[in-house]
Amino acid sequence: MDRRPIGIFDSGIGGLTVLKKLIELLPHENFIYLGDTARVPYGNKSKETVTRFAVECVRFLKKFDIKLLVIACNTVSSCGIDTLKKMFPFPVVGVIKPAVKEACWKTKNMKIGVIGTRATVNSASYINGIKKINSKIKVYQNACPLFVPLVEENWIKEKSTFDIAKKYLKPLMIKDIDTLILGCTHYPLLKRVFGKIFKKGINIVDSAVSVSSEIKSFLKKNRLENKHKRGSKIEFFVTDEPTHFREISRIFLKRNIKVKKIELL
Amino acid sequence: MDRRPIGIFDSGIGGLTVLKKLIELLPHENFIYLGDTARVPYGNKSKETVTRFAVECVRFLKKFDIKLLVIACNTVSSCGIDTLKKMFPFPVVGVIKPAVKEACWKTKNMKIGVIGTRATVNSASYINGIKKINSKIKVYQNACPLFVPLVEENWIKEKSTFDIAKKYLKPLMIKDIDTLILGCTHYPLLKRVFGKIFKKGINIVDSAVSVSSEIKSFLKKNRLENKHKRGSKIEFFVTDEPTHFREISRIFLKRNIKVKKIELL
Repeated sequence: MDRRPIGIFDSGIGGLTVLKKLIELLPHENFIYLGDTARVPYGNKSKETVTRFAVECVRFLKKFDIKLLVIACNTVSSCGIDTLKKMFPFPVVGVIKPAVKEACWKTKNMKIGVIGTRATVNSASYINGIKKINSKIKVYQNACPLFVPLVEENWIKEKSTFDIAKKYLKPLMIKDIDTLILGCTHYPLLKRVFGKIFKKGINIVDSAVSVSSEIKSFLKKNRLENKHKRGSKIEFFVTDEPTHFREISRIFLKRNIKVKKIELL
Repeated sequence: MDRRPIGIFDSGIGGLTVLKKLIELLPHENFIYLGDTARVPYGNKSKETVTRFAVECVRFLKKFDIKLLVIACNTVSSCGIDTLKKMFPFPVVGVIKPAVKEACWKTKNMKIGVIGTRATVNSASYINGIKKINSKIKVYQNACPLFVPLVEENWIKEKSTFDIAKKYLKPLMIKDIDTLILGCTHYPLLKRVFGKIFKKGINIVDSAVSVSSEIKSFLKKNRLENKHKRGSKIEFFVTDEPTHFREISRIFLKRNIKVKKIELL
């Protein structure tokens, strides 16, 4: 029994797909969400810069006495998680490991595809994670830098989005993958598009889903659940002016939210 | 006669289209270019955040005793230029005014279109600028947030880029504009695409071209030109790891460059 909130950090709004799943699975928990919207996106930036920004953001979340930190951003989970684990006293859960486990469990032909930002793909963290579990699995990656701006434009049903997705996914289709890891928290919003492209069918691993189940088990195992049934409290903070975040959060969460702007020191 | 360098500031790499034109027109000048690649893009961010970032960057350029500052970024020219003019002792030239003048001079049917980032469009600085010169001219705007990532992906000849451009430009075509202002320093790389879409022909106003002519006249008028013919020196600074900037600068400048990473305080 632990009423302290769960901290959720993302470079921007993509982490809301993770928050949405967490709310579904853990309706009694309190959450503090921080999106670094002044410096988003992280996906094309260097490991060093991504880590520096992440540390500054997590310092802010630390003030809320969080019981657990979720890195709801593949780029930070790929590039900066070790530093965060070393620097902060609370458990830190990223999106890579849970998705890796699920993909290894789902693949039958031992061929997994990974799509993500340039930083995530360059970090090779999905490849390394999968190889640790089963070195015989073949992993094929492709960086898809246009998916994030397409989602943020809300161009989810556009023909151009379908064409672009086809172009990005073709190199993975040729390799005959049977499982596709969505290595970016924006991508779940394009699930239907991906489904249409893989006509034969494909296992889609959505890191938002896998990390949420992992967190549920973790809380239970460590007796950190909040069992007070007074309804959960969710607070949202961003580093830029909140209007755009508030608007786009409707696409992700399908509800209206209050957001505060903060300045990181 | 003034050997001091010209400072050029952009949120990232787009300003290189301006630098390229400046080098052509002013081959004897020295330049210091700063791209805030750690926090790029500025185009979807608030006026307040954009101004804060710009001030931090210009403080860095001030150390080089620059004789003139070029804001090679439409977003900063729209949102932050007044603050910069007040804060710094050197002349500050943005990309809006020169493009506005050229467009007003070129249009015959008095209908001008403007495309740019969300921040530039929301600022209405092109509309206000044009209305000051001639209040009878009609101005139609559209924000095109996907053009920057498309250019940075180097998808300049892709069919998807053509389709997306068509979608963004259609509302302006319907209004029968005869002049189109490229209100973002990335867009000149898509000039051919825009030309194909306006089959009847269109005057394209490239702010990189207009600002460079303006600067040439300004230097001459104020006797600030460098007439030493020892070849110019160009220094490049970025706030993130320089590899990606170095690679993509080849698309913009068609030459290899040396880039240093700096950390802003």
